[in-house]
Amino acid sequence: VTPGRSFIDGNAASALPADDRGLLYGDGVFETLALRNGKLRFLDAHLARLAAGLERLGIAADPATVAEQVARAHASLLTGIVRVVVTRGSGPRGYAPPISAVPRIIVTCFPAPEPARPATALTIRMCSTRVATSPSLAGLKTLNRLEHVLARREWTDPAIGEGLMCDADGSIVCGTASNLFVVCGGQLMTPDLSSAGVRGIMRGVVIDAARELGRPVAETRIEPGVLGQAEEVFMTNALTGIRPVVGLPGRHLPVGAVTRELCGALSALGVGECAAFC
Amino acid sequence: VTPGRSFIDGNAASALPADDRGLLYGDGVFETLALRNGKLRFLDAHLARLAAGLERLGIAADPATVAEQVARAHASLLTGIVRVVVTRGSGPRGYAPPISAVPRIIVTCFPAPEPARPATALTIRMCSTRVATSPSLAGLKTLNRLEHVLARREWTDPAIGEGLMCDADGSIVCGTASNLFVVCGGQLMTPDLSSAGVRGIMRGVVIDAARELGRPVAETRIEPGVLGQAEEVFMTNALTGIRPVVGLPGRHLPVGAVTRELCGALSALGVGECAAFC
Repeated sequence: VTPGRSFIDGNAASALPADDRGLLYGDGVFETLALRNGKLRFLDAHLARLAAGLERLGIAADPATVAEQVARAHASLLTGIVRVVVTRGSGPRGYAPPISAVPRIIVTCFPAPEPARPATALTIRMCSTRVATSPSLAGLKTLNRLEHVLARREWTDPAIGEGLMCDADGSIVCGTASNLFVVCGGQLMTPDLSSAGVRGIMRGVVIDAARELGRPVAETRIEPGVLGQAEEVFMTNALTGIRPVVGLPGRHLPVGAVTRELCGALSALGVGECAAFC
Repeated sequence: VTPGRSFIDGNAASALPADDRGLLYGDGVFETLALRNGKLRFLDAHLARLAAGLERLGIAADPATVAEQVARAHASLLTGIVRVVVTRGSGPRGYAPPISAVPRIIVTCFPAPEPARPATALTIRMCSTRVATSPSLAGLKTLNRLEHVLARREWTDPAIGEGLMCDADGSIVCGTASNLFVVCGGQLMTPDLSSAGVRGIMRGVVIDAARELGRPVAETRIEPGVLGQAEEVFMTNALTGIRPVVGLPGRHLPVGAVTRELCGALSALGVGECAAFC
């Protein structure tokens, strides 16, 4: 694993104050971006989601300042991953956000030793850890990610690439670090995220690309039983694009036509990782 | 506000690595303890909840080590507040907990300039921020506390002392930093926390004390409408004990007999803050 290099509020730094509210309460948001040929992929979409999160949380960080610090942090890097965390900053004890809080911007660059590798197909599992039903935070990529950590902790078998998480009602919401799409009865579907989960950037790219291809995506409840009937299943993630699911508990699937078509569309949009599946 | 003095892994320190998973994912738990006359109140109960959280999260911190670091940190202090945070420690990018992760223990002492003040009665409000329904984390005091922050951010009026939070279904779960009790039709009740909220230490003390007084507490669903009919309402918190609620939206309440009886019982258990209400 390549260690990251961090910048805090624009300066190279590897430590932050122990009274940061990001640490104490998860009081902040983050984004993880793919850096390809010196450019951050889907940067505008990432910054828009970050800005929406800051707005929802009432954290007064200027999105333009965040963008500038991100740009400066990765200036000398061609390929890799850039993570940006924005917290409400330091504060006294207690949940009440201090009026005087100065947001803290932490940008970490993870260089990739070589160009991004092609995405591989996935075998996935069902996780028993439930994801929170949280109308207050649904869709946002906040620093409250403990359920995802616990779900990811359920397996160590390297043959399993991802795990699906359900909400308390038993509907599938997401993977631990990805969003789910299925084709069932010819209809392309993805879980509705109005009360749980993270609205992934690549999820949005796929929804837009599918619409352009005349395949509108239904955002809906998806029960685990659907996986037994689906013609196609794939997962999306900002770093890997589309990854077809070829292995489900008790079931093998081919890479389907809709998945291939969407991989082609994404490849044309700069998501070269999924070109192998066109 | 008195600034805190922090110890990280036993050493005086005010900064921690930016790759700490507590910051990045809220991957940890915490406790906030009242220090009175050099002793941490209900220390065993706090350590037990902390240990239960570490066990649930699979964080391999030794509770005995945590207890020892807490004791050393507050050794020179008589009165105040001690906060202990235990995170999974540093790690590479990604939700998967590294096998080699070394937990990080952060103890912060907040000295009080004078003995703890008596608790005052509360006027409370309803918050619109919903608390997550999370069977995976319910009851634990994890670092994922963003909903509590957003709920506490809903008001600045100093006359309002606390706000109640409901789950997505509209049942009351808790205050932003306290647990709720009501007496309704003679029955003492508190919200069931099996799928949301934090199982407060003072809540447990009150449940035990009430049982000893022959008043078993019903842990149940409590709809907001109950507040309009309740004979008594009070909130509990580790630092302030019992605080009677005398103001509700559109309603004033006296401090009732059950509340007074429980304040007396707690006062005898060392929670002197609520002696004023006996």
